[in-house]
Amino acid sequence: MSDTLLIREDNDGICTLTLNRPDAYNSLSLELMQALITTFDEIADDISVRVIVLKGSGRGFCSGHDLKQMLGEGEEAYYQCTFDTCSTLMQRVVNLPIPVIAQIHGVATAAGCQLVASCDLALASEKSRFATPGVNIGLFCSTPMVALSRVVTKKHAMEMLLLGDMIGAERAWEMGLVNWVVADDELEQKTAEVAAKVAASSRKAISIGKQAYARQIDKPLAEAYAECSKVMTGNMMTHDAGEGIDAFINKRKPEWQHR
Amino acid sequence: MSDTLLIREDNDGICTLTLNRPDAYNSLSLELMQALITTFDEIADDISVRVIVLKGSGRGFCSGHDLKQMLGEGEEAYYQCTFDTCSTLMQRVVNLPIPVIAQIHGVATAAGCQLVASCDLALASEKSRFATPGVNIGLFCSTPMVALSRVVTKKHAMEMLLLGDMIGAERAWEMGLVNWVVADDELEQKTAEVAAKVAASSRKAISIGKQAYARQIDKPLAEAYAECSKVMTGNMMTHDAGEGIDAFINKRKPEWQHR
Amino acid sequence: MSDTLLIREDNDGICTLTLNRPDAYNSLSLELMQALITTFDEIADDISVRVIVLKGSGRGFCSGHDLKQMLGEGEEAYYQCTFDTCSTLMQRVVNLPIPVIAQIHGVATAAGCQLVASCDLALASEKSRFATPGVNIGLFCSTPMVALSRVVTKKHAMEMLLLGDMIGAERAWEMGLVNWVVADDELEQKTAEVAAKVAASSRKAISIGKQAYARQIDKPLAEAYAECSKVMTGNMMTHDAGEGIDAFINKRKPEWQHR
Repeated sequence: MSDTLLIREDNDGICTLTLNRPDAYNSLSLELMQALITTFDEIADDISVRVIVLKGSGRGFCSGHDLKQMLGEGEEAYYQCTFDTCSTLMQRVVNLPIPVIAQIHGVATAAGCQLVASCDLALASEKSRFATPGVNIGLFCSTPMVALSRVVTKKHAMEMLLLGDMIGAERAWEMGLVNWVVADDELEQKTAEVAAKVAASSRKAISIGKQAYARQIDKPLAEAYAECSKVMTGNMMTHDAGEGIDAFINKRKPEWQHR
Repeated sequence: MSDTLLIREDNDGICTLTLNRPDAYNSLSLELMQALITTFDEIADDISVRVIVLKGSGRGFCSGHDLKQMLGEGEEAYYQCTFDTCSTLMQRVVNLPIPVIAQIHGVATAAGCQLVASCDLALASEKSRFATPGVNIGLFCSTPMVALSRVVTKKHAMEMLLLGDMIGAERAWEMGLVNWVVADDELEQKTAEVAAKVAASSRKAISIGKQAYARQIDKPLAEAYAECSKVMTGNMMTHDAGEGIDAFINKRKPEWQHR
Repeated sequence: MSDTLLIREDNDGICTLTLNRPDAYNSLSLELMQALITTFDEIADDISVRVIVLKGSGRGFCSGHDLKQMLGEGEEAYYQCTFDTCSTLMQRVVNLPIPVIAQIHGVATAAGCQLVASCDLALASEKSRFATPGVNIGLFCSTPMVALSRVVTKKHAMEMLLLGDMIGAERAWEMGLVNWVVADDELEQKTAEVAAKVAASSRKAISIGKQAYARQIDKPLAEAYAECSKVMTGNMMTHDAGEGIDAFINKRKPEWQHR
């Protein structure tokens, strides 16, 4: 079933995950969120994967939660389960040892915008649009806010959260919600280039660094440095650091351990 | 007395508060700060108010503390009372369940700039100017820094704090201190449009979300998500979320409970 | 020995420190880091210094750690000592009571980029370039990340950390890693102007404010305000605040205590 909801394609260390509910704007039904979590857990232990690209099929990236499914249930316990699952999913993206790149065409709204905010890097088509539109339906985007307020500054987060309007790719870029805005017909190619660059690095080094980011960002400066000094030393003791530095000094191409 | 210092006008859910000490550049005398706090407390419980617009009368927005008043007193206890009152005021803006929009013409300096930083959204005239100029008078803007360093990045905060120079509206926009820069003669109209957009949303949903923002932003990611997942569930159980989602699905205009 | 590694020149309150290992791109050998720490400690107590300018000799600003030295040692304890010393150095820059301005020409990479991120203000030549390129050598820039992720937003930090590519001065400015980008032949002069502006302020006020910044930034809002309200009161009781405010009101130039 998860084959239908979520398409996985692996190619030379790049794992592309396609949200595949095109008729529902790839909205995050409970089943799709669970499929994503399961797949991320599998990938975390799969040393053949060095980077993940996340995209949507059909007209857009992702329109957030599946409101029809939620309203159909109408129980507090079901809502809590939905938001807990969503929060688990978003934290999985953040804590995964592998970088996740969002490739956005069309709309990314509500929990779909949260997914963009939670990814490590984001490329957006010039035609893409973003919103946290909960205020328009009496449901403030409080969980998307957690991710959004950790990647853009406060006034920018409030601009999206309080107005609920669609913003264009250019405004999203100004805020730092996305890293690059590209022509619609170049989105696939540019994303592939960024993914290939990440995939060319040592999986070990990247996983050490990405996980250290998540641990240090919530700490006071002195604690963050104490933590990361140890992380650097540990990284130095790996095969890939020795190999990488030796290759650099001798002007040759490094051979990482897991390739 | 607060009628003179602070003018309140209510219109269709939009409460406009005008700092009214034009001869003193609307500087924040102890009395004006107390009037603001009292008024914010009244508004917090007034369900007819859905958004606040804060502006200044005369030549500018607000020039910070009333230095003449402070120097006239010259007592440590008086200074401490002034800064404590100011810190209470700024936190009231942040913690109020109702969004506060700053409408800035002319200068916003020192605690006036802090007020802009503390508001949720800010519109600035292209002629407006901003500064934390304390270094020029031997009094570093340490309390404005608390607000400023939570809305702009560190280098930008330091640029304002260490140099103390006036920056233009464009630079303030680049930093994210303000959301929009508009022509001077369009400031009033554009602010009214933004305020009307916020006022059209459910007061309940907005109040849930704004208060959740303040609680989650200082927490580590996992705690922020645990908190906000509960907030979302609570929001889902409100009348306005049910109404808003139903209206959205059925393509009709929602009717919020408190209008 | 530190005379060779690190050149100190004092001129009218401005202390210029030049990293002086031009043949090694001013890479931070253990000896150079120790010389910087020692010099910062001396300057902290030297009331003749009101601002520090940090720059590099030769082709660039600083290329990070001295990889040849590190690899030559090859011991875990030596690596740990290196990263601990580096973390101490960076925190010294942040906690020093005197502002530090980075003047960047050429490249600033890895711990060199971390140094730029750790400084209070930064001016960059239009020809300067920045990178945290550790991923290219199997050694993720985890300690530079601590500084970088506290001055730029998350997507921007990840863009540098995960790709490891050189970015130009313009992109660094967009991210807020540097405050100003200037023509290469104007870098020295523009930096001197910024330094002179800072040096014209009260050393006392600046030191109070810069140290308060470091203390308040890691605290929740209420604690930050409680702390900084006291700081403001303490600042008000200093000679320089009284002098500065009196000079401002009477439209004359202030005379700071320590000049």
